[in-house]
Amino acid sequence: MRAVIRRNKALVCDEIEDLAPQAGQVLVKTLACGICGSDLHALHHMEHMIELTSRANGGMTNGFDPTKDTVFGHEFCAEILDHGPDTSGALKAGTRVVSMPVTLTPAGGAEMLGFSNALPGGFAERMILSEALLLPVPNGLPTDQAAMTEPFAVGAHAVAKARLDPNSVALVVGCGPVGLAVIAGLKAKGHGPVIAADFSPRRRAAAEMLGADVVIDPAQESPHGRWEGFGVPTTRAAQNMIRMMGGSFGRPVVFECVGSPGVLQSLVEAAPAGAQIVVAGVCMETDRIEPAIAITKEIELTFVFGYTPEEFAETLHHIAEGVIDVSGLVTGKVGLAGVAGAFEALGDPEAHVKILVEPGLA
Amino acid sequence: MRAVIRRNKALVCDEIEDLAPQAGQVLVKTLACGICGSDLHALHHMEHMIELTSRANGGMTNGFDPTKDTVFGHEFCAEILDHGPDTSGALKAGTRVVSMPVTLTPAGGAEMLGFSNALPGGFAERMILSEALLLPVPNGLPTDQAAMTEPFAVGAHAVAKARLDPNSVALVVGCGPVGLAVIAGLKAKGHGPVIAADFSPRRRAAAEMLGADVVIDPAQESPHGRWEGFGVPTTRAAQNMIRMMGGSFGRPVVFECVGSPGVLQSLVEAAPAGAQIVVAGVCMETDRIEPAIAITKEIELTFVFGYTPEEFAETLHHIAEGVIDVSGLVTGKVGLAGVAGAFEALGDPEAHVKILVEPGLA
Repeated sequence: MRAVIRRNKALVCDEIEDLAPQAGQVLVKTLACGICGSDLHALHHMEHMIELTSRANGGMTNGFDPTKDTVFGHEFCAEILDHGPDTSGALKAGTRVVSMPVTLTPAGGAEMLGFSNALPGGFAERMILSEALLLPVPNGLPTDQAAMTEPFAVGAHAVAKARLDPNSVALVVGCGPVGLAVIAGLKAKGHGPVIAADFSPRRRAAAEMLGADVVIDPAQESPHGRWEGFGVPTTRAAQNMIRMMGGSFGRPVVFECVGSPGVLQSLVEAAPAGAQIVVAGVCMETDRIEPAIAITKEIELTFVFGYTPEEFAETLHHIAEGVIDVSGLVTGKVGLAGVAGAFEALGDPEAHVKILVEPGLA
Repeated sequence: MRAVIRRNKALVCDEIEDLAPQAGQVLVKTLACGICGSDLHALHHMEHMIELTSRANGGMTNGFDPTKDTVFGHEFCAEILDHGPDTSGALKAGTRVVSMPVTLTPAGGAEMLGFSNALPGGFAERMILSEALLLPVPNGLPTDQAAMTEPFAVGAHAVAKARLDPNSVALVVGCGPVGLAVIAGLKAKGHGPVIAADFSPRRRAAAEMLGADVVIDPAQESPHGRWEGFGVPTTRAAQNMIRMMGGSFGRPVVFECVGSPGVLQSLVEAAPAGAQIVVAGVCMETDRIEPAIAITKEIELTFVFGYTPEEFAETLHHIAEGVIDVSGLVTGKVGLAGVAGAFEALGDPEAHVKILVEPGLA
């Protein structure tokens, strides 16, 4: 079958071995698979990503070798083709499904789809998924939108890790795919006001579409100028004064969805005292912070990653029920032959929000 | 009256103006005042501390000018001498008291004692305190021990900011005054096990005295080797496996009580996945972290500072009731003339735990 392969730090369209589902697994046809920012990064920097992951996991790399062929793609919607042994067949062939990008192996291991040498991710015509992790796409939900479950689950998880109170004010810094998912996750839970900031007009428009209450161009105005207008005093002295008078105010929560060096320190400096900064943007480089400022302001940095199975399932249902409206986010579709070009196009934030790969396209 | 003055980045013993209490204030005689690590740092680096504090407080410095004379000392026990206007006199002259190191001014401001140009801290024969903030020393509690209220309130606050569950395992990294206060705060709340680590034998002995369950010399053994023995799996994979099997484990909480560059990153790397790192050690320099590792492990960095009035009062009562036993911690006493020498002696962690300044000593 055909797939887009990462080989020698480039993407090539080539044939790969056909797959047979093992115990507990199903063979699926990939209908659509989003391109993620981590794919863009991994194309050139996979070795560094794996080194960091290994250090974060006590030296374990799950046997993954970044010098070998890898087929990316972890944001997919697929159709069941065939069931392997020891499956129930509860979801019949022809059913459209989504799944967390993990396939359990009969030996008790797990392959991370999109970051595996053993199994291809969604930039291939077919994949092997675990029956136990399949979620049927609710009737009538378009495939394009179902494929948004994975990236939006990331936002649901970041929101779940935030300690929001009913009066909390949330600021989302960066409105790329992660920031948009956070905005959607906040609004799906009924939180507001949500302030969103991005230099890109296209991303600001998307933030507004997903329900951000205030959308700011940081080139024009500091988003931190809005806290007091929403009743959040920014200095510790002002906060202590309000508490002494028996008053209260909403907890400020900042979502860092940029992931570039320097952003964390700029937020430590600019955020209100007592703010929780939920770090969802993945900065792969060494970064510098001034702990004394974070201490004096009693900042909390909550680093978040991934999502739980429950958050993934809930996100699918939020999309299906229209609680999260992802209908306007797909700005491009490519077949396998178009993936390499799409990776380049995504370097420009004005060009696209989300590009879907449809292996069935010519 | 006599005081130890910070002048031209040196400590000099000199006469300063006598003081008269204003509305709501009392004049007290300083009985004892501990020397804090922040005093040692401020002697040479006050300008930098003020610059950081100003940036953390939206540009406010409370009018403090580090080039002018300052009398340090914020860990004190004192005796009431005289009451100013608009005071109730509920605590009579002769009563021993402690107070948070803040004096409210009739104009509605506040002076931070020990970091003020207007009012002296505890390295002076007399101070001006606010009647509203006075706490009487319970009968029979020695003055030396009452003077430990302030540094141990710092530990109570750090513990209050930790999200400990009944099965939590706590690791205290660094057993200087901040680490010891954290250990005491943990044990006062009934938390355990508490693992404590420090390179200094003297500090390890103090940690044991304050109730640490396991005391480790990091030169001999990594304290992070103990998590699994207390039932805390360290990798995300192992944690997920336990959760999938319906099991549970205590939340790992690390208290960073060193405050040197590099410690934060070493803890991000070495702590279990999902750990909360409560940052109580004040690192005044720019530090480097690798956010990608913190993200992959879902680390939380909770920067803490100071204490609430309630924590301060509770700490006094814990000390008075013997819940926190500070009786063995004072390893030296000096008069005002000995303060400069004591600052030097405290540079060696083997020489002392806590030195008290007693302005009444010859």
